Amino acid sequence: MARFAFRIEYDGGPFSGWQRQAGGQASVQQTFEEALARLEPGDHRIAAAGRTDAGVHATGQVAHADLAKDWDPFRLAQALNWHLKPAPVAVSACARVADDFHARFSAMERRYLFRLVARRAPAVLERGLVWQVPNRLDLGAMRAGAAHLVGRHDFTTFRAAMCQADSPVKTLDEISIEELPFPGGAEFRFHLRARSFLHNQVRSIVGTLERVGAGAWPPERVGEALAARDRAACGPVCPPHGLYLTRVSYPADPFAG
Amino acid sequence: MARFAFRIEYDGGPFSGWQRQAGGQASVQQTFEEALARLEPGDHRIAAAGRTDAGVHATGQVAHADLAKDWDPFRLAQALNWHLKPAPVAVSACARVADDFHARFSAMERRYLFRLVARRAPAVLERGLVWQVPNRLDLGAMRAGAAHLVGRHDFTTFRAAMCQADSPVKTLDEISIEELPFPGGAEFRFHLRARSFLHNQVRSIVGTLERVGAGAWPPERVGEALAARDRAACGPVCPPHGLYLTRVSYPADPFAG
Repeated sequence: MARFAFRIEYDGGPFSGWQRQAGGQASVQQTFEEALARLEPGDHRIAAAGRTDAGVHATGQVAHADLAKDWDPFRLAQALNWHLKPAPVAVSACARVADDFHARFSAMERRYLFRLVARRAPAVLERGLVWQVPNRLDLGAMRAGAAHLVGRHDFTTFRAAMCQADSPVKTLDEISIEELPFPGGAEFRFHLRARSFLHNQVRSIVGTLERVGAGAWPPERVGEALAARDRAACGPVCPPHGLYLTRVSYPADPFAG
Repeated sequence: MARFAFRIEYDGGPFSGWQRQAGGQASVQQTFEEALARLEPGDHRIAAAGRTDAGVHATGQVAHADLAKDWDPFRLAQALNWHLKPAPVAVSACARVADDFHARFSAMERRYLFRLVARRAPAVLERGLVWQVPNRLDLGAMRAGAAHLVGRHDFTTFRAAMCQADSPVKTLDEISIEELPFPGGAEFRFHLRARSFLHNQVRSIVGTLERVGAGAWPPERVGEALAARDRAACGPVCPPHGLYLTRVSYPADPFAG
């Protein structure tokens, strides 16, 4: 047996999310496991760092799997990309790792990007790749609102009712927001970084900050919502298709070198 | 009669190009003219600054049309975007202009962007939005090759056989190339700026510079190819789906204010 780590990129649009589901739409996990089965027949079970929801994209998801053959990592990635076609899933890096490496439990940090386009005309080139709102957004107000969330807090307000995490207390190491030019409007990129996130935490935060940017919420209300520790105090949860899992970090980068 | 200018964005993928064709696949022009006909019945003919080829995208195409009614530009853009759905075409700015404004003949400068991803794994999120090559590319070599092309030259080498321009002499004001991080590879963005371009000029240049970046051509060969004034001396013409018409400039910006 040999354990391999994969860095995986996908367009979440056509999938039910990362995790394998009973029946219905295909999941990214199932698609990937089926590609593995083309290389080594039999059942495969892979574990991923982030169980992204339906519609959420990834440029830096990490997963691991055990294979019978000691594949050359470069050739393994090539073969998987061949069998993954035409699904919008690709392996952008592959490495042989130690048997105690676990994509989920060894992870020290996860990074997410959220792309939000503020413009009235539909963003036709970025269709499915950004969340779009018609109103203008105030960058300074969103940054002021976001500042209330950085650090160690009880994030009950920003957590889905179905969240299975043991504790609502998490440390958010970073929320930075940049504004980029976009013809006839603006694009805002939210960068979030933490050891781990609660279910729907990023989408609850971005949906709330959008309300601040639109002027519907004063920035201080974000701090009040956090302090309330009440799901009902959260702003609207924004849609998944602007969200990207961009990076997962480990004590030693499995893909370095 | 009132003349209007439109800044238009489109995903070139499903279209036969900007220009209306007899039969076959829809053109962007036809799609736009049909949306205008939903607002004011009858035949409409619009003129655009750049007659982009099949598969070429735009974020800053400019076109003009004459309408019977003196529309409020904001409401006109909104109504057109409504009727353009679900085609991947959108009006990102609209303005009332003088009767002597001509989107094509008044234009003083055009800018194009070309997105080239160098990576072995397929770029699934940017599918149809970039040209992808599996090999690595040397930024310095491509910049050295590009330097031969800046300025006023006879671009016969970099011009399609079917090009209808009166003269092959053009002044290329800028080719700048930036390298951006891309998981497991790199993205190169080529920015080109000129008063006007010959047919296939950008794709002929980028396709040639890719050969330089790959190490197949020494940078000096770009200068020799230009001096040859011979289409056969050109490198391979690259595919259209990495190319974007990003901006058209006029003596006074019709969309300012």
